Amino acid sequence: MTLKTALTEALGITHPIVSAPMATVAGGALAAAVTEAGGLGLIGGGYGDRDWIERELRAAGNARVGIGFITWRLADRPELFDMALERAPAAVFLSFGDPAPFAARAKEAGVPVICQVQTLEHARSAARAGADVVVAQGTEAGGHGGARTTMTLAPAVVDAVAPLPVVAAGGISDGRGLAAALTLGAAGVLIGTRFFATREALGHGNAKARLVSAGGDDTVRTDVFDIARELPWPEPYRIRAVRNRFFDRWNGAEDALREEIADTTDSPVDAFHAALRSGDTEESLVAGGQGIDLVRAVEPAGELVARIAADAERTLATCASLSASP
Amino acid sequence: MTLKTALTEALGITHPIVSAPMATVAGGALAAAVTEAGGLGLIGGGYGDRDWIERELRAAGNARVGIGFITWRLADRPELFDMALERAPAAVFLSFGDPAPFAARAKEAGVPVICQVQTLEHARSAARAGADVVVAQGTEAGGHGGARTTMTLAPAVVDAVAPLPVVAAGGISDGRGLAAALTLGAAGVLIGTRFFATREALGHGNAKARLVSAGGDDTVRTDVFDIARELPWPEPYRIRAVRNRFFDRWNGAEDALREEIADTTDSPVDAFHAALRSGDTEESLVAGGQGIDLVRAVEPAGELVARIAADAERTLATCASLSASP
Repeated sequence: MTLKTALTEALGITHPIVSAPMATVAGGALAAAVTEAGGLGLIGGGYGDRDWIERELRAAGNARVGIGFITWRLADRPELFDMALERAPAAVFLSFGDPAPFAARAKEAGVPVICQVQTLEHARSAARAGADVVVAQGTEAGGHGGARTTMTLAPAVVDAVAPLPVVAAGGISDGRGLAAALTLGAAGVLIGTRFFATREALGHGNAKARLVSAGGDDTVRTDVFDIARELPWPEPYRIRAVRNRFFDRWNGAEDALREEIADTTDSPVDAFHAALRSGDTEESLVAGGQGIDLVRAVEPAGELVARIAADAERTLATCASLSASP
Repeated sequence: MTLKTALTEALGITHPIVSAPMATVAGGALAAAVTEAGGLGLIGGGYGDRDWIERELRAAGNARVGIGFITWRLADRPELFDMALERAPAAVFLSFGDPAPFAARAKEAGVPVICQVQTLEHARSAARAGADVVVAQGTEAGGHGGARTTMTLAPAVVDAVAPLPVVAAGGISDGRGLAAALTLGAAGVLIGTRFFATREALGHGNAKARLVSAGGDDTVRTDVFDIARELPWPEPYRIRAVRNRFFDRWNGAEDALREEIADTTDSPVDAFHAALRSGDTEESLVAGGQGIDLVRAVEPAGELVARIAADAERTLATCASLSASP
C-alpha cells in the first residue's frame, strides 16, 4: 500500500516525500537514492558552483531527480538555470527570492516548478508566478528559513493557494511527521535534516554524527554562520544550525566578527572553511533543524523513505481507529 | 463518534481538547463552556489576584473545571495554590517554573497535575515531579512560551516521557491541528488563542476582533510587553502577541522603555494599562499565536469544541483512506 496524494500525482512518484536541495549536502547520490526509493530527490544547486552542479547531476546517473536553487543567488547567475533546464530535470525548486522570472522559463521548458515559501505573502506570490507545487517551510527547518512554524504555516498556505498541492517542510523526521503534514492538508513533505544524516549525503561524517548526538533544543537560528562565510543573505532569512563553540563566541558580537573579517589578513573566514573541511564541528557549521531529537542513526536514504512512508500509513490508520461511540 | 485517547481516559472527558488557562482571558465562563461541550476548561490563575480567581471559580458554577498557574509567580503566593486545591478542581496546571513542590501537594490532595513544558529537559523534570499529563508547548503559541515548535517538540516529548499522556499546544486552531497532534503521538491538544476569540473569553472585544483580522505573519515573540507591564518574567520565556504600534516603537529600544518607566512620573505603564482597558489594541497588548490565520470569527466556545473534534475525526478518516495499492 502507498499514500496517494495530489503530490504523488503531480510529480509521478510513489511516496509523497521529497528530499530538500541542501546546499553542499544534497548531491547526486542522495537525490538518486531518494528517487529510486519512490520519492523525489533534489540536488542542491546551492551558491552556484557550476562544476559542482554538473558533477552531482552526473553522479545521479539515470535517476529522475530535480534541482533546487537559492533564488536571490541565482539572480546573479541565470545561466545556471538554463543549464539545469537543458537536463530536463524532474522538477526545479526555487526558494528565498522572487521566483517569477525563473518559474516562467521553467514552464516554457515544460519542467514542473516547486516554490518554497516562508510566509503567506510568499505563498500567494508563488501561486501567481505559476508554481505547480508550493512548499510551506517552517522555522524548525535546518538551514535557511523564516519565522513561521510548520504547524501554522502549512494549513494557512493550503487554504491560501487551493487547489495547488502544498508540501510541508520543517521539523519532519519520521512517519509521524508525514502523517501530521497530511492531516494539516498538505499533500506531502520535504525533508532536509533527516536526509543529511544518511550515508549518501555529502558533508563530513562528524557533522552527521553531531546531528545524531545533538537534540532539538541545541539548535539556533542565527546570522553568525553567514557572516563567517561572507554570504550576503537578505532579510529575513537566517540559518538554523546546531549551537557550537563558534556560535557561542560570536553570538551577540556579530559586528566584531564583521570587523575581524574586514581587518585581518589572517581571516576567520579561512579558519572557518578549514574547520568545515576537517570536520571540526565546534569551529564550523552543522546545519540542522529542531527535528533532530528523532535522528538517532546515520542510515541509508532509501530505507528512510520506505520506513517514513510505511510508518505514516500505519500512524494514520491507528489514529483513525481512535474514533469510538461515546 | 468521539476520539478516545489516553487524555480523555486520564481526565474523564469526552473530547481530547483542553482550553489554556490564559491570564486575564480564561475566566469561569470560558472554562465552563469548554467543559460543558466535552473538553476540559481551565481557569487562568494568572499573576495571582485572589479576588479574580475566586470570582471566576464562582462564575464557572457547577462545571468541572481546572485551574492553571504561572509557576514562578505562584512561588511567591503559595497560599493561592492551597485555595485552589480546596476547591477540588478537575486538574491543576503548572507552567513556567519548577513544578515539583506544587505537584507533590496536588498529588497528596488527589488532584490531577498537568505540567506544561517548553523543552525536553523540562519534560523530563515534569515526569520526575509526578505529572499526570505533560503539555508540550510550541513557540507558535500565543502568550508566554519558548523556542521549540509544536511539530518537533511534541513527538520528542512523547518519546521522552512515555507512557505518560502528552498534549500538544501551540498553533492549533482547528480540526486539522487536533488530527496532526494525534498523529505526532499526542493524546490531545491544549488550545489558547482560538478560545480567546470566543464570546465567553474575557478581554476587550477589540482584541478579539484583532485576532480575526490579523494573520500569523503579524505575530512576534518579545519582551517589550512584559517590560511595559513591569512583569519580571524569567528567561527564556517571552510573550507572543500581535505586532502593533507599541511594539514597533519600543522593539530594539527596550532599555529606553525601562528608563522611561523608571524616570517619569507620567509612567508609560499607566498609559499601557489604560489602553488595555479601553480596547486600544495598537497601544496595548493582544496576545495571540501564529495560528490566527485560521481564526476567522468570534464564536461560542462550545461550538468550537464540537467542531474541532468532529473535523479531526473526519480528517483522520480521510487521510487514512489515502492508502491505496501501488
